[in-house]
Amino acid sequence: MPIARITLVNPNSLTPVTEAVARAVAPFDHLPLAFRCLTSTDGPAGIQTQAEADASIAPMARLFLQEADTTDAFVVACFSDPGLHGLRDLVRVPVLGIGECSVLTAMSMATRIGVIAIAGAAIPRHLRYFRAMGVADRICGELALDMKVSDLADAELAFQRMTTVGKTLRDVHGADVLIMGCAGMADLRDRLEDACGLPVVEPTQAAVAMAAGRLLRRP
Amino acid sequence: MPIARITLVNPNSLTPVTEAVARAVAPFDHLPLAFRCLTSTDGPAGIQTQAEADASIAPMARLFLQEADTTDAFVVACFSDPGLHGLRDLVRVPVLGIGECSVLTAMSMATRIGVIAIAGAAIPRHLRYFRAMGVADRICGELALDMKVSDLADAELAFQRMTTVGKTLRDVHGADVLIMGCAGMADLRDRLEDACGLPVVEPTQAAVAMAAGRLLRRP
Amino acid sequence: MPIARITLVNPNSLTPVTEAVARAVAPFDHLPLAFRCLTSTDGPAGIQTQAEADASIAPMARLFLQEADTTDAFVVACFSDPGLHGLRDLVRVPVLGIGECSVLTAMSMATRIGVIAIAGAAIPRHLRYFRAMGVADRICGELALDMKVSDLADAELAFQRMTTVGKTLRDVHGADVLIMGCAGMADLRDRLEDACGLPVVEPTQAAVAMAAGRLLRRP
Amino acid sequence: MPIARITLVNPNSLTPVTEAVARAVAPFDHLPLAFRCLTSTDGPAGIQTQAEADASIAPMARLFLQEADTTDAFVVACFSDPGLHGLRDLVRVPVLGIGECSVLTAMSMATRIGVIAIAGAAIPRHLRYFRAMGVADRICGELALDMKVSDLADAELAFQRMTTVGKTLRDVHGADVLIMGCAGMADLRDRLEDACGLPVVEPTQAAVAMAAGRLLRRP
Amino acid sequence: MPIARITLVNPNSLTPVTEAVARAVAPFDHLPLAFRCLTSTDGPAGIQTQAEADASIAPMARLFLQEADTTDAFVVACFSDPGLHGLRDLVRVPVLGIGECSVLTAMSMATRIGVIAIAGAAIPRHLRYFRAMGVADRICGELALDMKVSDLADAELAFQRMTTVGKTLRDVHGADVLIMGCAGMADLRDRLEDACGLPVVEPTQAAVAMAAGRLLRRP
Amino acid sequence: MPIARITLVNPNSLTPVTEAVARAVAPFDHLPLAFRCLTSTDGPAGIQTQAEADASIAPMARLFLQEADTTDAFVVACFSDPGLHGLRDLVRVPVLGIGECSVLTAMSMATRIGVIAIAGAAIPRHLRYFRAMGVADRICGELALDMKVSDLADAELAFQRMTTVGKTLRDVHGADVLIMGCAGMADLRDRLEDACGLPVVEPTQAAVAMAAGRLLRRP
Repeated sequence: MPIARITLVNPNSLTPVTEAVARAVAPFDHLPLAFRCLTSTDGPAGIQTQAEADASIAPMARLFLQEADTTDAFVVACFSDPGLHGLRDLVRVPVLGIGECSVLTAMSMATRIGVIAIAGAAIPRHLRYFRAMGVADRICGELALDMKVSDLADAELAFQRMTTVGKTLRDVHGADVLIMGCAGMADLRDRLEDACGLPVVEPTQAAVAMAAGRLLRRP
Repeated sequence: MPIARITLVNPNSLTPVTEAVARAVAPFDHLPLAFRCLTSTDGPAGIQTQAEADASIAPMARLFLQEADTTDAFVVACFSDPGLHGLRDLVRVPVLGIGECSVLTAMSMATRIGVIAIAGAAIPRHLRYFRAMGVADRICGELALDMKVSDLADAELAFQRMTTVGKTLRDVHGADVLIMGCAGMADLRDRLEDACGLPVVEPTQAAVAMAAGRLLRRP
Repeated sequence: MPIARITLVNPNSLTPVTEAVARAVAPFDHLPLAFRCLTSTDGPAGIQTQAEADASIAPMARLFLQEADTTDAFVVACFSDPGLHGLRDLVRVPVLGIGECSVLTAMSMATRIGVIAIAGAAIPRHLRYFRAMGVADRICGELALDMKVSDLADAELAFQRMTTVGKTLRDVHGADVLIMGCAGMADLRDRLEDACGLPVVEPTQAAVAMAAGRLLRRP
Repeated sequence: MPIARITLVNPNSLTPVTEAVARAVAPFDHLPLAFRCLTSTDGPAGIQTQAEADASIAPMARLFLQEADTTDAFVVACFSDPGLHGLRDLVRVPVLGIGECSVLTAMSMATRIGVIAIAGAAIPRHLRYFRAMGVADRICGELALDMKVSDLADAELAFQRMTTVGKTLRDVHGADVLIMGCAGMADLRDRLEDACGLPVVEPTQAAVAMAAGRLLRRP
Repeated sequence: MPIARITLVNPNSLTPVTEAVARAVAPFDHLPLAFRCLTSTDGPAGIQTQAEADASIAPMARLFLQEADTTDAFVVACFSDPGLHGLRDLVRVPVLGIGECSVLTAMSMATRIGVIAIAGAAIPRHLRYFRAMGVADRICGELALDMKVSDLADAELAFQRMTTVGKTLRDVHGADVLIMGCAGMADLRDRLEDACGLPVVEPTQAAVAMAAGRLLRRP
Repeated sequence: MPIARITLVNPNSLTPVTEAVARAVAPFDHLPLAFRCLTSTDGPAGIQTQAEADASIAPMARLFLQEADTTDAFVVACFSDPGLHGLRDLVRVPVLGIGECSVLTAMSMATRIGVIAIAGAAIPRHLRYFRAMGVADRICGELALDMKVSDLADAELAFQRMTTVGKTLRDVHGADVLIMGCAGMADLRDRLEDACGLPVVEPTQAAVAMAAGRLLRRP
C-alpha cells in the first residue's frame, strides 16, 4: 500500500501558526502517512473576523487545486473551517476541517462540550457554524480568552487565562469535555487537561486522527 | 432628507442576471431611494456549487469597499447570501441578503415555507444556511426544478416546471407560502402566485422592501 | 398609485400608549402612506398577563372588521402579538405583529438577540411565542425591568434600568442586538443604542418598516 | 375527603359536541369525582380557524370565572386548547387542555406520534402549538380527514376515512401511536385502535385521566 | 370492574428507598387500585452512575416477567427510568417511568421546568434523556444538591439545600415549576412547595397519577 | 511505543456476527494495533428489540471488566450502542460505539444522512438515540429492509433490498451519505457505494478508524 499523503493548510499567512500546526501533527509522524503543513501565503494575516475567514477561501482554493494531484486528504487548519464545504466540491479526496473534527471527536467523549475561543468576536461565527452542523445542543458554552494580542505572545499568561476559562466552562456551564477553539495551541493541551481535570480536544490532532483513521484502511 | 442609496450586487458575472435583478427593483423606483444594480465582474460565471458561492466573496468584497462611500445599504443579490456576515464586518452600512430577507418575509406571512431551488445541488447548501439562521423548523420542504440549463432559457418551460414544483410543495409538503430560491425570476412571481394559489416571495423584492423600510425612517 | 393606508391598533385601552405608538410612527410620515393609530377602547387596561393578552383579541377583531374596508395593512401594536394568526384569517390585507417583526428585523442585523421585557411575568409568554415562531435558538436571553408601575412613569429611572438590563444581556448573555419588548418606548431607542453600544430594535418601527416595504411596491 | 369537581367546557356553542364530550367522560363516572360538561353558549358555532379559536376565549373566560367557586379542576375541551395559559392566570385551580394532555399522554406510550386532524386548515395552528409546547420533534406527521361537513355527519364514512388516514400515518410517517385531533370522537376510539393496530389517544379522556390523577391524591 | 393492580419497582436494592416510594403512594390508597411496591433485590445498591442505572435493568426485567400476570400497570421508580422502553417490549401492560411522568406532568403546569438532582454526575444522563424525549427545550436548568452522602441522611440539612437549589432555579434560571429529580423524597414535597413558592412535582406521585388515570377508565 | 490493543465486543451471542465484525476490521490489521473481536457469550441471541439491547448490557459489562487490564480502547459492536455511556463509567480507557462513530463520521462527509435499518422495529430506538446525541436534524431518513429473517441469509437478496432502500433514501429523502445501520455487513459496503452512487459508512470501520486515530497518537 503506498503511503497516504495528508496536506494540512493553514489558511492565514502566518508561518508561526503553520509551525505550531506541524508540532501538533508530530505525534502522528510514526504512521505510514506523509504529512505536509502548508501556509496559504496569499491568505489574510490572521483570521479574527468573518470577513478574514471568507477572504482566506479563494487563496486556499488555489492551493488546494495546485496540491490536489499529490494529496490523499486535505485538512483545513483553522477552527472556523473556512470554505470547508466548497473545497469538498473542488477536489475528489476527503477534506476535513479542524473545527468540525474537534466537535465530532468531543461528541464521542462526553455529553456537554465547552469551547475556549481566543476572541469574543469569533463566538457568533462559531455559533452559526455549530447550528449549521446541527450540533448546537451539545455545546454548553463558549467563552473567550479576551486577551490583548500583545499578551497572547506570553505563553504562560495565555495558559493561565485558558485555565481560568476552562474551569468556568466546567463549573458554571457544566462542560465535561473542552475544545481549544483555535489552531496552534497543541503545546498547551496536556497541561490544560491536567489543570482542568477534563479531557481537552486539540482541533488539529482531532482532524489528523480522523483523517488517519479514514486513510489507513487498506482497500 | 437626502435620498438614500441602495446598492444591489449580483455576485456572479452574468449581466443578464443583473438586468433581471434591476427589473425586480423597478416597482420600488418611485420611492425617495436611489438604486444601483452592479455586476461583480470578477465573480464566477454563475453560482451553482458551494465552491462558486465562496469564490464570489472576494471580488464582491472589493466591490463593496469601492462603493461603500456612496452607499447607504447593500443588498447581496444571490439566494445563498455568499459572504453576508463577513461583508457586514467590512462596511458600516446595513448589508442585507436576499436569501435571509426572503425567509424572514415569508415567516411574517404564513407558517410553513416551501422553497423552489433551481438545482438539487443547492439544497444541502441552503439547508445548512437555514440551520445556521435557526429557522430550519419553518421550512417544510425544498425541491429543485432540476432542468437542463438549455431548457431554463425557455421561460415558459421553466414556469411550467416551477408551477409543478410549487404545487407539490403545497400539496405534499404542506407549504402555505413559497419562496423562489434564486435571484432573477421576479418576472414570474405574479403568475406563479396565481397558478399555485399561494403567496410567493421573490427574494430581491423581499430584500429591497426590508432595506427600504429601514432606510426610509427619518432620523 | 393611491396612497396605501396602514392602521396600527393598540389592543389595550390606554390612550397614552396609542400616543406613544403614534410617535414611533412619525419618522415614516413623509412616505406616500397614510397612518392611523387606533385604540381598542374595549380592550383591557394594559396587557401584563396572558389572560389580558387573550382578552384583547375579541375587541380588536371587531375593530379590524370595522376598519378593513379602509385599510391596506394592519399592525397589531403589542409585543405579544395577541390574535395575530387569527386576525389574518379575518381580513384579506396583510396583518403584521410588532413582536414578530421586531424579531425578524433583529435576525437580519446580528446573531444573538437579547430581549428587554417590562415585567418578568411576560417572559414565559414570550418564550412560548418565540418557540411557536421557530426562532427560540436566536434569543440568547430575555430579562425584565421588574420595576414598580409607579416607578415606570419616571422615564429617567426606566431608562437607567433599561440600560442596566441591556448591558447585562450584552455582557452576560452575549447579545449583539437588543429588542425593546414592549410598544410605546420608541422615544428611548436612540439613547439606549448609545448607552449599550448595540443596535436596538423598536418593535413598532420594525413593523412599520416591514409593512411599508411590502406596501410601497408598485403593482 | 370531599368529592373533587371537574368542569369540562366545550368552547363552541354546539351542544352535540358537549354531549359527545360527556360520553367521553362516562367511563370515569364511577370515581369519587363530580363531572360537569358545559357548553360555552356565547362561543363560536364550531372552531375551524384560528380566528374562531381566539373568539372562543372571551366567553369561555366568563364561564370559568362564574364556575370557579364550585370547580376543583377545569378542562378546555377543544383540541387547540384556546386560551389555556391565560385561563390558568384567571383561576387558582388546575386548568388542563385536551390537546396538551393528549400529546403528553401519547408521549408516555410510544416514540412517534401521528395526529388525525378534521380539517387541513387546523394543521398550521396545531404545528405552532406543538412548537410552543416544545414537543414538535415527537410529532411524525399530521394529516387531515378533509371531508365535506355534510359527510362528517355520516359516522361510518368518517370512520373509514379516519382509518385510512391512521394507516397512512402508521405506514408512511412511521407513527406508533395516534391522536384523534378533535373533541367529540371518543365513540370511535376503540374501533380505530383495532383497525389501525396502534394505540389511539382520545384527547378528552387523556385530559380527564390526568385531571383525575392529580385530584385523587389525598392531601 | 376488578381492582386494577399497579406494581411499582424500585430498581435498586435499598429497602428504605422502597419504603419511601410506598409513602409517596399512600395518598392514592383510597382508590379502587391495588398498589405493590417491590424492591429489585438483585439490583445495584443505589443508582448514581449510568453504569448503575444500566446494571439495574436485567434484574428488574426478571421481576417484571415474574409479576406480569398479576399486574395491570408497572411503574419504574427511579428518576432515570432505566430500561423503560425495553420493559415496554417485555410486558403487555402499560409501563410508566417516574422521570418521564414527572416531566410530562410539569409540562402541563408551567412553561419553564427546573430539576433538582441529588448528584451532579446524574445531570449529563438526565440531559441525554430529556433530549431523547424531545423535551429538552422545556428544561430551563438542572442543579445538583451535591451533598456528601453522610449529610443526605440529615433530612433537615437536605431540605435546606434543596430549598436553596430550588430558589436558584427559580431566580436565576427562571423556573416556574420544579421537579424533584429522585425517588423517595415525597415527604419533603409540600414543604419545598411552600419554601420556594412554586409548584413541585414529585416523580412517583406523578407516575401514579398518570397510571391511575389510565387504569381507572371503565372499559 | 507499545502496540495499542483494541477490543471489539459483539454484544450478542451469535459468533457469525463476531466473525463478520472481524472481517470489517481486517483492512486495519497492518497498523501497529492489536485487535481482538470477542463474543459476549451470555448476551441475547440477536438484538432486535430495545429489551434485547438492554439485556446485552450486563454480560457485556462483565466482559469489559474482565478485559480492561489488557485493552487500550473498547468498541461496542452493535449499531444501537447498548450501554455505551455506562461502560464509559466502568473502565478508564476510551469506549467507542459503532452507532455513534458512524453518525459522527457521516457528519464529516456530507449534509444529509440516510440510515438503512435491518428491521422497522429498530427505528424508534435509533431515533431516540439520534435525539439523545443531539444530531437528529442531520438524519434525513431511516428506512428498514423489512426482510424475513430467512431471506436475510441470502446475501444477494439482502444486497438487492439494501440497494433499493439506499436509492429511496437518496432520491426521496435527499440523502447524500448512507449509513449501514447494523454490524456485520461490511462485506457489502463497496458494492452498495457503487450501486447507490453515494458514500456509505460501515459502522464498525467508522469506529475502528476513530479508535485508531485516537490511539495512534504518540504520547
